[in-house]
Amino acid sequence: MDLSGLGEFGLIELIRERFASIPSHGCEGIGDDCAVLPLNTTESMVVTTDLLVEDIHFLRDRITPEQLGRKSLAVNLSDVAAMGAAPVASFLSLSLPPGVTGVWIDAFLAGYHALSTQFGVPLLGGDTTSARDRLTVSVTAIGRAENTHLKRRGDAKPGDRIFVTGYLGDSAQGLQDMLSGRDTPFIALHNKPEPFVNEGIWLGGRNEVHAMMDISDGIASDLLHILQMSGVGAEVSLDMIPTNTPIELAVAGGEDYKLLLTADVGAAARLAEDYKAKFGEPLYEIGRIVAGEEIRWLDRGNPVLLECEGFAHF
Amino acid sequence: MDLSGLGEFGLIELIRERFASIPSHGCEGIGDDCAVLPLNTTESMVVTTDLLVEDIHFLRDRITPEQLGRKSLAVNLSDVAAMGAAPVASFLSLSLPPGVTGVWIDAFLAGYHALSTQFGVPLLGGDTTSARDRLTVSVTAIGRAENTHLKRRGDAKPGDRIFVTGYLGDSAQGLQDMLSGRDTPFIALHNKPEPFVNEGIWLGGRNEVHAMMDISDGIASDLLHILQMSGVGAEVSLDMIPTNTPIELAVAGGEDYKLLLTADVGAAARLAEDYKAKFGEPLYEIGRIVAGEEIRWLDRGNPVLLECEGFAHF
Repeated sequence: MDLSGLGEFGLIELIRERFASIPSHGCEGIGDDCAVLPLNTTESMVVTTDLLVEDIHFLRDRITPEQLGRKSLAVNLSDVAAMGAAPVASFLSLSLPPGVTGVWIDAFLAGYHALSTQFGVPLLGGDTTSARDRLTVSVTAIGRAENTHLKRRGDAKPGDRIFVTGYLGDSAQGLQDMLSGRDTPFIALHNKPEPFVNEGIWLGGRNEVHAMMDISDGIASDLLHILQMSGVGAEVSLDMIPTNTPIELAVAGGEDYKLLLTADVGAAARLAEDYKAKFGEPLYEIGRIVAGEEIRWLDRGNPVLLECEGFAHF
Repeated sequence: MDLSGLGEFGLIELIRERFASIPSHGCEGIGDDCAVLPLNTTESMVVTTDLLVEDIHFLRDRITPEQLGRKSLAVNLSDVAAMGAAPVASFLSLSLPPGVTGVWIDAFLAGYHALSTQFGVPLLGGDTTSARDRLTVSVTAIGRAENTHLKRRGDAKPGDRIFVTGYLGDSAQGLQDMLSGRDTPFIALHNKPEPFVNEGIWLGGRNEVHAMMDISDGIASDLLHILQMSGVGAEVSLDMIPTNTPIELAVAGGEDYKLLLTADVGAAARLAEDYKAKFGEPLYEIGRIVAGEEIRWLDRGNPVLLECEGFAHF
């Protein structure tokens, strides 16, 4: 058995199967943006954790320490928002190689602190240690929601309209530009994702929102998770996807950190209106849930073949 | 500002100060073995997280993958136990360099799974990613306890008796033996710590237990945390410390993962009796809490000077 053959999702599946034998006492584990732990009869806690590894997820000389600190928290708050939950705490672990100065750490913490303050999320703990040569950041975020507000990947229904909360592809374009040495405004969008915290909480309160997740690997990959867990298919209109980039980056670039959601067809228009009124930005409708199990890509109504996959971590 | 000058505890203090401005809504953060998040009027959740970094915390060719998987969870369950809480879930993140095979991962998971099963702790999530060259393991553990059962570092009282739940120094001796190429039974004790999960839960239910923590950096360092947070001093009798190793390793070796606790003088003898009856092992009394702010080391009643510090991560 070789890891590269296993892949990230294969490894996660291996872990899920192996640990299925341990009773989880009403908790929901691997398979959604966050785990869900019941607090009482009406509320749950959600938990998510992400690793950012130097030279895999970031290049230390291509992102400022402020940006990296901020982004480390942002990607976790995005997962909490994707559940319809409000973030209540974060935990930060850092392994620091010798070259990292106190000035660098201070700037990293400033970025982490700025986003923590923006959404009122206290930092309640973590771990700090040295490393031989590469920096690793591990963040755990905890959120809280009423059970009726929790949004999961498995609740999409045929007929649902599919929405995203922002432009797709900017981050992937920024990564491409950065790696090819071009200096473009996309790089800042890659380095400074804005988690949809308030939007996620608000969408959590809307019953017509069925399935929700955040877009971290590109919708071509992420929407498949919703389809698989809901037992449905989807039609997505490429011409309706909001993007400033080539369509391949918009659907398969990854690290968008926008929300992807499905909403009851009868209430979808009203939901989009209310969202616009509340946040001043549109909910972008990109397609609909249908019977089936795959994504059918359409371009101005005509089926097209799209040969791409989401961002893979291996 | 240089990181090596700052040190691990300096860095933690820097983080604590910087984030003190964000309201924590009744949560307790940095400063104890776990953060405490209130669930309702009678119960709290505790959260802890630890990083294990290759070539800092372990050498991949000196610990079996089973042992590393088990130990990654063990050190976190030890923190949960130190609060008097019962573990309810864990989260595992792994960054895997190219050389790591599927067979290695499978064995790592087997070790993690064995300890999870032993204490009925479900694995509810995590993150898996690649790494350039060194492996990092990040585990977050969550526990739950009645508020009246929670034990903190700041509750030691003058007169309290100080106890530890097992022999000290074995792990440090094992590390020393491993690094010097000797093959001794201590190495297995270093690689396979036994968290005092059931003992921690039981001690949490005893009102006469005042302060508690787990011993990760050696009592010379760890007991100081209790003293500082409780505003007290201590007398520790070196001749009463249970150990099979030189006294320096017993007090400053680190990675013991035994529990260190203080108990009301009037009920301490009874506590030790009941503990022995329940677990078949003694609570080892090693000294007492006094007024002051330092540790006075005694050897058969005579003050001695002990020039050593706990294990430092920088």
